[in-house]
Amino acid sequence: MARNSIGKNLILTSFGESHGPGIGAVLDGFPSNFPIDFEALAAEMNRRRPGQNPLTTPRSEADSVKFLSGIFQGKTLGSPIAVFIENQDTKPEDYAPLSEVYRPGHADLLYQIKYGHRDHRGGGRSSARITAGWVACGALAKQWLSARKIDIRSWVQQIHTVSAPSYPNETQSIPSFESIESSWVRCPDPSASQAMINRIKEAQEQGDSLGGKIATAIVGLPVGIGEPVFGKLQSVLAQYLFSLNAVKALGFGEGESAATMKGSEHNDPWLPDGKTASNHSGGIIGGISSSEIVHFSLTFKPTSSIQIPQQTINHNNQAVEVSVTGRHDPCVLPRAVPIVEALSALAIMDLLLESPSQYTF
Amino acid sequence: MARNSIGKNLILTSFGESHGPGIGAVLDGFPSNFPIDFEALAAEMNRRRPGQNPLTTPRSEADSVKFLSGIFQGKTLGSPIAVFIENQDTKPEDYAPLSEVYRPGHADLLYQIKYGHRDHRGGGRSSARITAGWVACGALAKQWLSARKIDIRSWVQQIHTVSAPSYPNETQSIPSFESIESSWVRCPDPSASQAMINRIKEAQEQGDSLGGKIATAIVGLPVGIGEPVFGKLQSVLAQYLFSLNAVKALGFGEGESAATMKGSEHNDPWLPDGKTASNHSGGIIGGISSSEIVHFSLTFKPTSSIQIPQQTINHNNQAVEVSVTGRHDPCVLPRAVPIVEALSALAIMDLLLESPSQYTF
Amino acid sequence: MARNSIGKNLILTSFGESHGPGIGAVLDGFPSNFPIDFEALAAEMNRRRPGQNPLTTPRSEADSVKFLSGIFQGKTLGSPIAVFIENQDTKPEDYAPLSEVYRPGHADLLYQIKYGHRDHRGGGRSSARITAGWVACGALAKQWLSARKIDIRSWVQQIHTVSAPSYPNETQSIPSFESIESSWVRCPDPSASQAMINRIKEAQEQGDSLGGKIATAIVGLPVGIGEPVFGKLQSVLAQYLFSLNAVKALGFGEGESAATMKGSEHNDPWLPDGKTASNHSGGIIGGISSSEIVHFSLTFKPTSSIQIPQQTINHNNQAVEVSVTGRHDPCVLPRAVPIVEALSALAIMDLLLESPSQYTF
Amino acid sequence: MARNSIGKNLILTSFGESHGPGIGAVLDGFPSNFPIDFEALAAEMNRRRPGQNPLTTPRSEADSVKFLSGIFQGKTLGSPIAVFIENQDTKPEDYAPLSEVYRPGHADLLYQIKYGHRDHRGGGRSSARITAGWVACGALAKQWLSARKIDIRSWVQQIHTVSAPSYPNETQSIPSFESIESSWVRCPDPSASQAMINRIKEAQEQGDSLGGKIATAIVGLPVGIGEPVFGKLQSVLAQYLFSLNAVKALGFGEGESAATMKGSEHNDPWLPDGKTASNHSGGIIGGISSSEIVHFSLTFKPTSSIQIPQQTINHNNQAVEVSVTGRHDPCVLPRAVPIVEALSALAIMDLLLESPSQYTF
Repeated sequence: MARNSIGKNLILTSFGESHGPGIGAVLDGFPSNFPIDFEALAAEMNRRRPGQNPLTTPRSEADSVKFLSGIFQGKTLGSPIAVFIENQDTKPEDYAPLSEVYRPGHADLLYQIKYGHRDHRGGGRSSARITAGWVACGALAKQWLSARKIDIRSWVQQIHTVSAPSYPNETQSIPSFESIESSWVRCPDPSASQAMINRIKEAQEQGDSLGGKIATAIVGLPVGIGEPVFGKLQSVLAQYLFSLNAVKALGFGEGESAATMKGSEHNDPWLPDGKTASNHSGGIIGGISSSEIVHFSLTFKPTSSIQIPQQTINHNNQAVEVSVTGRHDPCVLPRAVPIVEALSALAIMDLLLESPSQYTF
Repeated sequence: MARNSIGKNLILTSFGESHGPGIGAVLDGFPSNFPIDFEALAAEMNRRRPGQNPLTTPRSEADSVKFLSGIFQGKTLGSPIAVFIENQDTKPEDYAPLSEVYRPGHADLLYQIKYGHRDHRGGGRSSARITAGWVACGALAKQWLSARKIDIRSWVQQIHTVSAPSYPNETQSIPSFESIESSWVRCPDPSASQAMINRIKEAQEQGDSLGGKIATAIVGLPVGIGEPVFGKLQSVLAQYLFSLNAVKALGFGEGESAATMKGSEHNDPWLPDGKTASNHSGGIIGGISSSEIVHFSLTFKPTSSIQIPQQTINHNNQAVEVSVTGRHDPCVLPRAVPIVEALSALAIMDLLLESPSQYTF
Repeated sequence: MARNSIGKNLILTSFGESHGPGIGAVLDGFPSNFPIDFEALAAEMNRRRPGQNPLTTPRSEADSVKFLSGIFQGKTLGSPIAVFIENQDTKPEDYAPLSEVYRPGHADLLYQIKYGHRDHRGGGRSSARITAGWVACGALAKQWLSARKIDIRSWVQQIHTVSAPSYPNETQSIPSFESIESSWVRCPDPSASQAMINRIKEAQEQGDSLGGKIATAIVGLPVGIGEPVFGKLQSVLAQYLFSLNAVKALGFGEGESAATMKGSEHNDPWLPDGKTASNHSGGIIGGISSSEIVHFSLTFKPTSSIQIPQQTINHNNQAVEVSVTGRHDPCVLPRAVPIVEALSALAIMDLLLESPSQYTF
Repeated sequence: MARNSIGKNLILTSFGESHGPGIGAVLDGFPSNFPIDFEALAAEMNRRRPGQNPLTTPRSEADSVKFLSGIFQGKTLGSPIAVFIENQDTKPEDYAPLSEVYRPGHADLLYQIKYGHRDHRGGGRSSARITAGWVACGALAKQWLSARKIDIRSWVQQIHTVSAPSYPNETQSIPSFESIESSWVRCPDPSASQAMINRIKEAQEQGDSLGGKIATAIVGLPVGIGEPVFGKLQSVLAQYLFSLNAVKALGFGEGESAATMKGSEHNDPWLPDGKTASNHSGGIIGGISSSEIVHFSLTFKPTSSIQIPQQTINHNNQAVEVSVTGRHDPCVLPRAVPIVEALSALAIMDLLLESPSQYTF
């Protein structure tokens, strides 16, 4: 049970169900006296918010963040920061037809077995809606990192079979925030973006859904972040990132391509300035940040909720057909971009708050 | 600092350096009165041991496990089980030429920056040798799981560009332990195995190294294992598995292929018997085990230590050429198979020891 | 930083400041399907609530508990239970005269040094008001324990120099809930209760405050609760109980009297029915519950906020005189009784949710 | 289960049984490059070692500490420090007569119930012998604290009814290390020391045992140590100190005397130099260290193992008489002094390694 908290030095505790009063989170360990930029935080919430454009679920949530604690006169107090986001546009009636059916690709049946009940109003804790609290807290972490010149940038690299050209691992070549945000699908390459939009619309019309990949670059991370054994940078990031339901794969640097490389190709030679001549490793060596950009790729499965009729069972274990007609994104990736950034920021800040590794008076 | 422990209910604490007195681990939380099969444990150690065959490092370590605590009259006491494996065949002189050079793909330079010193005798905590303690403790977890009819089986699926045919996700079709162990490279397909062996010998002769992929199947896991938010089955497994230095990617079920699938293709329909008609999800839905085999694929980068001369820097930040002539595996995958099983077993047993999710008198 | 959570299996996370929007807590790990008795919960809140009678602070707070998550149709979902209690009767103006003065016995100055700011509106996180969230969550734990026939009962044993007669450590002789609750000071002995009330009124008139002792008995705890090394029953209880600001001492069983006893006096002989002939140990042997009542005594210092003028310093480090005129209890013990019960219940339930110690198929 | 680790930033993991191969501990989180004074460490071990003088158990253990990891060339590596102390003078035959009897005041019976077995060779994990590992690790923490001018000093304040005069809470008046160590019972007052020795000899001759109190002063702690809610300085110390089996009570500052004080007496007025005019609080206000000496008192029950015949039961639940004739201290306090210091040092160092509370670039 439990395990609704993550982090060691900066601890995020998540609470709330999709169709209960709202979604919340408590962020413990954030240093005091840090001035919060509330507009920037609202902007992050808007990036995750449903109903941004015709490609997302029409569920309309303002997702305004109420601070229940931890902030006074615009600055952090050093006490736990509790955020709460009310559920406003819940339509439990949408779920009525599903109350006796277990949806394929969903955890309804497993919750029933594990918890002995079913919150038939929606996904409960398995709903993507609980990430609203993560994004709010992640926005605070991003601001703190940003004040240290650490930037975390995610974008959609692939949707279904449409891919953007890959971005070389050099600081100057990371796609700009503007190029990402100007695209409905958060793909910085205009022509790939248009092709992705078309592909999603097609799926939407068919009542189907699509998966894809999100790329992330962490720029400006100091050398030496990550602990060498069970707190490796990749391990900590993985723990956070695999908390996103739809994520099915994660690769650092060359990712799966490393399998077909030789040591002489994959090794990144050290240069006299402390940088490396290449960055196949994705900025992490031995679990510790090198001086290069940390980059990784996340694969998302297609949304489970689709209108196309599927075979499944009902709660009497009878075979039935189901068509999921609630309000769902045909492709979650565009809205997942700020969530990936938020989780990455929380992971990185947690590691940055570690005790010093060296003995100092 | 710290973070040399992993787990919540079954806590593995790792200690020891590659060229110090030895490698150890403490396993806390193992229930009492469980009879240990010491021969089976030694067999696991042998699978990981260097010097098994001509494809592995010639460092010769008996790797016999000394129990310092926790076991009495062949059974667990319920107290922490401490294991210790002496380092016997250390050759620090091998490392003398490297004492002033930072090896590409290695964390030497980063340790120097992070810890302000360098244990020039070998990799210290970044050495793969520390996994000896993990395998010993993992062997205990495997025995405990096995008594519950849960089996964890890993094998080499790919080395460099040579792949074995993929195994359907059905219990009866998982490769047998014998078919895996009869291969020097732990690939159950005889012809792929031979091709892999040839490929490794080739790399060995060239002084180069190879990466690849390991597949894993967890058979017999009860339904409902994994916690829905930050203790998702995939997230917990990822935290353990990315603790292996060379792992660069992890995918569950379809893995990266999920990106190009539609929801109507990827969703696994529920059947009246509680199984699913397909298993694209890899046996995990919403972070919780379904009734299917849990399966995942790990990508390993090629070994960093290669004899081919490479550009790098020395501790005066001068460009130098280095050829790493110590005793190293040209391909770590065959010996990594029992390590992947050990880490998986520890993760799974940790989750199985969770408090019950349902209220019961 | 951080450390606003406590517990391993049942994790209480506390948030909120005395004069912010409200006080809250998240309780993670509570099993699903447990029916909540909301009236009983409200009754617990009333026992802690200010303004109960003329001996307590006149700050008037309804302290009604709003559930933000974790409960549906009157039962627990198995997801985190978030509670929130609004601050309604804050009078920050009361604190205006104190905004430049550091109060003796208070942590104002230390917060200033530690966090670099001061929330001059009240005690912030050091206010006893944050225990409202603990009592709400503790009430849930008490109900769960009660369903297992485990009862936790605290009462005021001593105020200043007035003591109630001590209660023998036998189940039948524990004071009844009614005898405790019928007293304004929660002392079950009527004549001691009256003497305590008089003593408090006297202190109140003098603008002074009083300390005292609270006794606690845990009845019905199964044998074997507590972990033998760092999870000893007394150690876990101590960690929770010393979280109450005013607590300065804690003794189990004979407490400090054990110092002057001989082994032949203190040892509790085992009886054939598995009970012990005496209970000097307070129901805990080797860190583990025996079959006897667990009992302990907590010493509270007198309230720091007093109207009697005291010497102190202001924020320019100048010596000044201060008289704390806000609304404060002259003696916190009567209202601390339900808090002690709540903390004890949370600690006990956390230990009861531990993984089994014995190997079982 | 589990809970054999303690600490958040500096994590002590304890392993080993009284009559197994030996006793060990792993200390994780100790910063790198700290030079260890091995003689000082051995001296601490000698203070705890049995057989120091005729008042202690004649079990003769060299208790030399073997470092299994974490130290290279006399300095810490920053990796986990594993220590191991062999059991040499075990006499399991001493315990043979006890193998069918449950000793009063001991946890034998409770271990039997909890773990389903009994290590009849001695106390197993409940033996005071496991503190050898704590003292070794605590010695490292003491050296680290000492380099920061933080000193932790404990001494025997009371044995049975013999008390030393109390020491005012002022730095200059803390008893000197020499005055403590020159006494067999570690009581700095020569005449009280002599009376205590006589009292112990008397008990020894009677086959009985004695309890008492140990006082501790922590001098030089910086202001602001301790976290305000669940990481209060007193709560963290209590968690460590109540891990010592025989400890039955703990009081900070005035301890139980605070019960009979008024606020106007107990409050410590702040002085312009940031000190307080008195130190009734024991150097802790609101859970945070003030600028004063942190001091507390621990009450120990008398040793449970006594030769005087006692009533108890055997493993057939029959009433029997037992006389515990093994080698035991008639009074554990003199040897507990270094253990109390060790636990305190580990707790304090853990808190000192916390992330900074204030936001800083």
